[in-house]
Amino acid sequence: MTATEPVARRGRPGYDRDSMLEVVVEAFNERGYDATSLGVLAARLGLSKSAIYHHFDSKEQMLEVVLGKALDALDDVFDAPEATSGPVRDRIRYVVRGAVLVLAERKPYVTLLLRLRGNTAVERAAVERRRAIDAKMRTLFELARDEGTLRGDIDPRVAERLTFGMVNSTVEWYRPEGRTTPDELADAVLAYVDAGLIAR
Amino acid sequence: MTATEPVARRGRPGYDRDSMLEVVVEAFNERGYDATSLGVLAARLGLSKSAIYHHFDSKEQMLEVVLGKALDALDDVFDAPEATSGPVRDRIRYVVRGAVLVLAERKPYVTLLLRLRGNTAVERAAVERRRAIDAKMRTLFELARDEGTLRGDIDPRVAERLTFGMVNSTVEWYRPEGRTTPDELADAVLAYVDAGLIAR
Repeated sequence: MTATEPVARRGRPGYDRDSMLEVVVEAFNERGYDATSLGVLAARLGLSKSAIYHHFDSKEQMLEVVLGKALDALDDVFDAPEATSGPVRDRIRYVVRGAVLVLAERKPYVTLLLRLRGNTAVERAAVERRRAIDAKMRTLFELARDEGTLRGDIDPRVAERLTFGMVNSTVEWYRPEGRTTPDELADAVLAYVDAGLIAR
Repeated sequence: MTATEPVARRGRPGYDRDSMLEVVVEAFNERGYDATSLGVLAARLGLSKSAIYHHFDSKEQMLEVVLGKALDALDDVFDAPEATSGPVRDRIRYVVRGAVLVLAERKPYVTLLLRLRGNTAVERAAVERRRAIDAKMRTLFELARDEGTLRGDIDPRVAERLTFGMVNSTVEWYRPEGRTTPDELADAVLAYVDAGLIAR
């Protein structure tokens, strides 16, 4: 199976895998993962259950792939050279902008990730990956504190939580097709995050 | 019925009304309002259902009272003279600090409020009250823009959303009994919010 393999059944237009995932993540967000049966997914996709099993081993594997769309993109941001070397202030700016852009570009996937409560093995693994990303952000603020580029009256842990709190809350209201572009949203978030950082 | 009327049944220590509400809001937060039956509440309170009906007309009225603990405190902040007169920058600082302190002091009540989806009349009314508070915050940022104390590159609506996003996200992690005091948390939030504001 390739990522672009077309799927066409019952006269529906063909799906590529990414289009299928969009339908799946929308269903999970609307109904919750637990409450979304394979029958519901089949009806929304206009596919038979066996056609779905041609693409995915199980509903849980669909969840894993869907969550990977958010987590892989966030890992790419936090593992990039711009996030792991150079002045700490620039690294923080890079990961904050990157996280905002991932959220804007993959909003349904990040929304699902943020709402997870971790009841299955796949969910627990995703929560762990999310925590590892939080820890990378916290480490950057700790580095900033150690080199004196974080305001002395702000705890790195609080800085990390407030920054991700601000970034993550945008899934509740931000519409990428609205009047604020993803880059403008990132600029606004950075205006606030910068307040905790001191230029060197 | 007075707010301090003692309740003692089945050998349990007496409850005042506020202590009852703490048990009720904890149950609603853990199980969700819909899934919390009157029987569950009676068991947790160590009271008979009829004893609960001595205090409250219905489960929905309990929800109304519990949500009022958050909404009344937030209304007090946004309707205070410090929020409605004087320099806009000071007003914004006052309401942001006030909202953080309400959240820290009444965290379970604010948590329930923020998770509401509005399925019943009481929930819809609470969501409306919450929207009115959001609108007051937005109006303050619009006043700041009009008088030139909001950075020109930040949309007042985005400023309002990011500010409340940051404040509200603290319910997910802040522990009032931990090493950061509510006042220190408010200081950290204000350090960020200040970045969007220009002194006059």
